[in-house]
Amino acid sequence: MAVFSKEEYMERVRRTKEKMNEWGIDLLFISQPANMNYLSGYDGWSFYVHQCLLVSLEQEEPVWIGRGMDANAARLNSILSHDNILEYADDYVQSTVKHPMHYMADVIKKRGWDKGRIGVEMDQFYFTHRAYVELEKSLPDATFKDANTLVNWVRVIKSDAEIGFMKIAGEIAHNVMTAAQEVIAPGVRECDAASAIAAVQYRGTAQHSGDYPAIVPLMMAGEGTKTPHLTWTEKRYENEEAVLLELCGVYKHYHVPIARTMYLGQEPPALMRDTGKTVLEGLSAALDMIKPGVTAEEIEATWRRTIEKTGLVKESRIGYSIGVNYPPDWGEQTISVRPGDKTVVQKNMALHLIPGIWLDDVGFEVDASFYVTDTGIQHFFDYPLEICVKR
Amino acid sequence: MAVFSKEEYMERVRRTKEKMNEWGIDLLFISQPANMNYLSGYDGWSFYVHQCLLVSLEQEEPVWIGRGMDANAARLNSILSHDNILEYADDYVQSTVKHPMHYMADVIKKRGWDKGRIGVEMDQFYFTHRAYVELEKSLPDATFKDANTLVNWVRVIKSDAEIGFMKIAGEIAHNVMTAAQEVIAPGVRECDAASAIAAVQYRGTAQHSGDYPAIVPLMMAGEGTKTPHLTWTEKRYENEEAVLLELCGVYKHYHVPIARTMYLGQEPPALMRDTGKTVLEGLSAALDMIKPGVTAEEIEATWRRTIEKTGLVKESRIGYSIGVNYPPDWGEQTISVRPGDKTVVQKNMALHLIPGIWLDDVGFEVDASFYVTDTGIQHFFDYPLEICVKR
Repeated sequence: MAVFSKEEYMERVRRTKEKMNEWGIDLLFISQPANMNYLSGYDGWSFYVHQCLLVSLEQEEPVWIGRGMDANAARLNSILSHDNILEYADDYVQSTVKHPMHYMADVIKKRGWDKGRIGVEMDQFYFTHRAYVELEKSLPDATFKDANTLVNWVRVIKSDAEIGFMKIAGEIAHNVMTAAQEVIAPGVRECDAASAIAAVQYRGTAQHSGDYPAIVPLMMAGEGTKTPHLTWTEKRYENEEAVLLELCGVYKHYHVPIARTMYLGQEPPALMRDTGKTVLEGLSAALDMIKPGVTAEEIEATWRRTIEKTGLVKESRIGYSIGVNYPPDWGEQTISVRPGDKTVVQKNMALHLIPGIWLDDVGFEVDASFYVTDTGIQHFFDYPLEICVKR
Repeated sequence: MAVFSKEEYMERVRRTKEKMNEWGIDLLFISQPANMNYLSGYDGWSFYVHQCLLVSLEQEEPVWIGRGMDANAARLNSILSHDNILEYADDYVQSTVKHPMHYMADVIKKRGWDKGRIGVEMDQFYFTHRAYVELEKSLPDATFKDANTLVNWVRVIKSDAEIGFMKIAGEIAHNVMTAAQEVIAPGVRECDAASAIAAVQYRGTAQHSGDYPAIVPLMMAGEGTKTPHLTWTEKRYENEEAVLLELCGVYKHYHVPIARTMYLGQEPPALMRDTGKTVLEGLSAALDMIKPGVTAEEIEATWRRTIEKTGLVKESRIGYSIGVNYPPDWGEQTISVRPGDKTVVQKNMALHLIPGIWLDDVGFEVDASFYVTDTGIQHFFDYPLEICVKR
């Protein structure tokens, strides 16, 4: 069974069709797993083979097309009627002679959708160049348009039901960080810490199941703190080293990231303490000004202005929109909090601000995950912001 | 530090260049994370943004290009000299005006590699259609060729060092399945079982760190056993239901999958028992005939001939090659054990045979993960094959 009501999914489809009209698209060909899930409820680790969801302006319900063995999953967990679940044979998989796009193109022709403007997600992983070539070759009467992030932009404002899911994810995130800070200490193996973290991520709470995150625990230690995307090894944590944790809680694929900094030893070095103080001041100023009507770049400007005096410079974006997602990324690929992003913040948007510092001489991470209310923001968790010092 | 010796990586690069010569490629543009890792040691969860590894026939070492914040990771864990680690600025990330391929094309031009035949991985996730379009537009003097699975085919025969890693992964796989069968019982929540499984996957053994799998635990129960790629929820296991487990052990990104079937209750239904018996007989016959010189399709034919008499039919491939991998797939995308695959089995190939049955009335999974020796095969684990019955 799908995790939201059929009405909620059909409302999302309706809003997607509105955007298709705006963008001049008759048939939307969706490959991105989160977008497929968002519009149909379909859920399965089947995205390592080609699959798609079609949204046609001429038909109420979307159509799912995937590998034969996964069709029963679509029947079990999507809101789609069985007529709109279609399967290709297994010899299409990773074949050098057949391609799943040939089957998908045949479906499009049979439904009479091959003469219009077809939107594809041109810069989404899961839509390869070859997929495009085969689709184009098989549908000579179609006009192809770039529909990259079209559905992502439908996702950007969350329903109250989605916010409810994210609150549960926030509770899990809190538990995940608590477990991490409890287990990490000098002498402990990184992999044993990762194990304790994953155990809480998957377990969730007493009431609600956790889910797999779109990004595994990122946990940099020692010289690893110069960079943000390392995982773990059998190495033991040492005395007098910093640990950066970028983790998250997930409920039904809805993500709430949480990032904090630890220091193992007597007292963090002065540079780390000062950097932390600056980042927290900047983050706090940015959070204070967020409400409906401000733009993404204004949030970043507030951050930048606040930290300017200290000489600290951060070149990368300080945040992005979050919600439902699948590997490899929990970012929504819509809002980026950086200069030039003029997106106007609205109620029920959900953001992750993470002004992380990964320099050769110092690393520091802290974040905030929240949604926008009528007048400001509401955090998904309330977790101490300061460096967690452990001996 | 990279996990293999510099010599081992450079030998892989040498064999890649041999294949580039065969395929008529001067510059290889690699996007697939496992291929990047295989040729350079680079490791980081950074593949949610565009990145690449370039292999030129004109230069000994490959070149890594990625996002600025990830360059320090390449400096820490790849064998590349710092001259061959290049970074693009953060405002290229998910931008609507700039594209990381512009930066990468500039590097190719500066190194004088833009006039030749450039091979790209046309059907690999992580190489989007847009990536191709931007690259082609930026390199008008180049001829583009499909180099899909070129490096995958270099990977197909493992070094002894790689087999050593997979033996460790096999040990972890054994522990993972033991933990799963210990925790799963009527009344237990699926998410608590997933938690126990992930804890062992990440922890590894007392000597060796586990790693994140390219596919999370797949654990179908009850009516979920009609399909192979479901994960878990807060649902409690019930009495008289089957559970299919497709799990794995991972060491330094080397995967050894393990799949088994459980039945919760007094005794599995006759259809399940009979299906299990047939599958085990077919699997055993297939394993018995594998040695250097047989072809992939001959393995499948042996399986098919053995089960024929029972009327059981399996339309999907029964196995594939395994080794180093990253999400979303632990399959290597080279050998598929099915009709038409004429790949000749050679020493130090590693395979996963999983003749799974996911039908409306019965599901059954069992597998074997092994490598090929001079005279036959050597299993990566020795785990009971029979249905694990628990009350």
